[in-house]
Amino acid sequence: MTATLSQAPLREYTRILGVGAARPDVVVTNEDVCQWIDSSDEWIRQRTGIVTRHRAGKDTSVVDMAEIAAREALAVAGIDASQLGAVIVSTVTSPYATPSAATELCERIGATPAPAFDISAACAGYCYGVAQGDALVKSGAADYVLVVGAEKLSDIIDRHERTISFLLGDGAGAVVIGPSDTPGIGPSVWGSDGSKWGAIGMTHSMIDLRDMAIQAEEEPEGTALVGGSEAKLWPTLRQDGQTVFRWAVWEMAKVAQQALDAAGVTAEDLVAFVPHQANMRIIDEMVKQLKLPPTVAVARDIADSGNTSAASVPLAMHRLLREQPELSGGLALQIGFGAGLVFGAQVVVLP
Amino acid sequence: MTATLSQAPLREYTRILGVGAARPDVVVTNEDVCQWIDSSDEWIRQRTGIVTRHRAGKDTSVVDMAEIAAREALAVAGIDASQLGAVIVSTVTSPYATPSAATELCERIGATPAPAFDISAACAGYCYGVAQGDALVKSGAADYVLVVGAEKLSDIIDRHERTISFLLGDGAGAVVIGPSDTPGIGPSVWGSDGSKWGAIGMTHSMIDLRDMAIQAEEEPEGTALVGGSEAKLWPTLRQDGQTVFRWAVWEMAKVAQQALDAAGVTAEDLVAFVPHQANMRIIDEMVKQLKLPPTVAVARDIADSGNTSAASVPLAMHRLLREQPELSGGLALQIGFGAGLVFGAQVVVLP
Repeated sequence: MTATLSQAPLREYTRILGVGAARPDVVVTNEDVCQWIDSSDEWIRQRTGIVTRHRAGKDTSVVDMAEIAAREALAVAGIDASQLGAVIVSTVTSPYATPSAATELCERIGATPAPAFDISAACAGYCYGVAQGDALVKSGAADYVLVVGAEKLSDIIDRHERTISFLLGDGAGAVVIGPSDTPGIGPSVWGSDGSKWGAIGMTHSMIDLRDMAIQAEEEPEGTALVGGSEAKLWPTLRQDGQTVFRWAVWEMAKVAQQALDAAGVTAEDLVAFVPHQANMRIIDEMVKQLKLPPTVAVARDIADSGNTSAASVPLAMHRLLREQPELSGGLALQIGFGAGLVFGAQVVVLP
Repeated sequence: MTATLSQAPLREYTRILGVGAARPDVVVTNEDVCQWIDSSDEWIRQRTGIVTRHRAGKDTSVVDMAEIAAREALAVAGIDASQLGAVIVSTVTSPYATPSAATELCERIGATPAPAFDISAACAGYCYGVAQGDALVKSGAADYVLVVGAEKLSDIIDRHERTISFLLGDGAGAVVIGPSDTPGIGPSVWGSDGSKWGAIGMTHSMIDLRDMAIQAEEEPEGTALVGGSEAKLWPTLRQDGQTVFRWAVWEMAKVAQQALDAAGVTAEDLVAFVPHQANMRIIDEMVKQLKLPPTVAVARDIADSGNTSAASVPLAMHRLLREQPELSGGLALQIGFGAGLVFGAQVVVLP
């Protein structure tokens, strides 16, 4: 006769209680970019909508940015760090294989002994984190969950390449998710398409780098290191821009629509659209395909911040609420998508 | 007037439906280890309980091992990959910053378009993944969740150092979590202590490596690469063994007891104890402190497999069920703990 396991009580509803942001100090203009690639301010604005991107200095880490965003999100939510039941950091740029950035963040903000872990889901990482935070609160595993998207993408770019590097910025955005008396987070429409695993990714693996480094140590005068580009040894990001653009425009509008359908609402019910800030033309195209009425505020943080991967959706939400605080309490459609390929979307009540 | 968001129906109960394992081919004996460190087979057995560890060859990747374990877990569970609502890979040894190992695994096993992401929670990663899988199924976000712990730790060790490298093996373990008519996974007791962030970790960061690599490219005859040890450039694992040992023995027995209490069961209700396979002396000490009766089977896979981090608990469960299939359906206490520091424990019904 097996004993029966006790269970935590389930919760019906969750919502986002607060959002925080960190935009690092170094502003990189299109003119700066044109020192490294043969382009122009006009071309970059027209093709991407980007005017500047923020990047972190040498002494600013992923966790430094995550901490600023997390503290603001907690303060706005009115939640003490000690109330957190989980700390989730979505990042692809933590410089240590282990431990996680989340454990360091958790300790810094005073959330120890909360469970803390990093997730790797690229530019969909914040929406993936919201899906998990929502589930953890509903299942009773946590009362409050901190979800942070934090990236120092400038660490993994080659300034001289032109498929992706000039688009990217650094930053962090954070939200606190907690219980709600009314529905505040719609069903997550999330997924992946690993058949396009190679569409966005690194030039080579860390193991390739290790083998080159070992070879270099064995023959310091050898050929392994002769190159000149800063990216020869160090793996950096690349994308097949056309594949990603097409996928984003065609498939992601469908995913966004599915998120509306799953939540049982229509474009007319929205006050805001907060898409991943990958490219202004993708944002424009999605707005068109979703037939968003002009009353829906569209987050276009990319102009100032570039593409900050997992940080981009909460950063964009943060700016939207700062510029239009009256949107608070309304419904927003948020969607992230990126390397994997991966995607995630939800309709949420804005904090 | 804001529209109300529809919600997915909640589920009361979940359980582990099947477990799978991958143990790579290369068997590393204590004699092999003693080529690299000044030790003996007797000393290693007495201090750690390890006789052999399995390691993967150059052509075997984290995803290769994850795939073998995942396919077995799905087959045993009787679940088709297309039914998966999420694929979670816990690993600290995926060699790419992005995309995740999970998206590649998801595609290989035929689970596309399921959401797929990696988590970083070191040796607690499997138990962290079970906490998330349990929450995703209960919240209605997924019907079935694949949780894989997969590590190629041999990629991030320095064979010549003696705090941790000789303990470590490679491998993967996987479980499928799904809905249940009766409680099958007790409340997760999980957490972190980032004040001990430095107790287990890397010699230096990837960014340190990058800077050394760039310096080496700039001055190929320079001093940056002169060293001789394979670990000079490449970051490898270290631990403060005494701090970790004490923490594991004293604090983790408490966490294990909390998991029993949260599930509303006692040591007498268990048929098995499946702890993280870090050190046989830690396992023995926990058995003593938890006052486990001799009727409780204790997983001691470490003797053959070494410490495989996130893979160790499912690997140990897999072996226990193969050797004692009559344990199936009984209650097991599982616990993982490691770099962060992080920990996670649950009482589960064995598949």
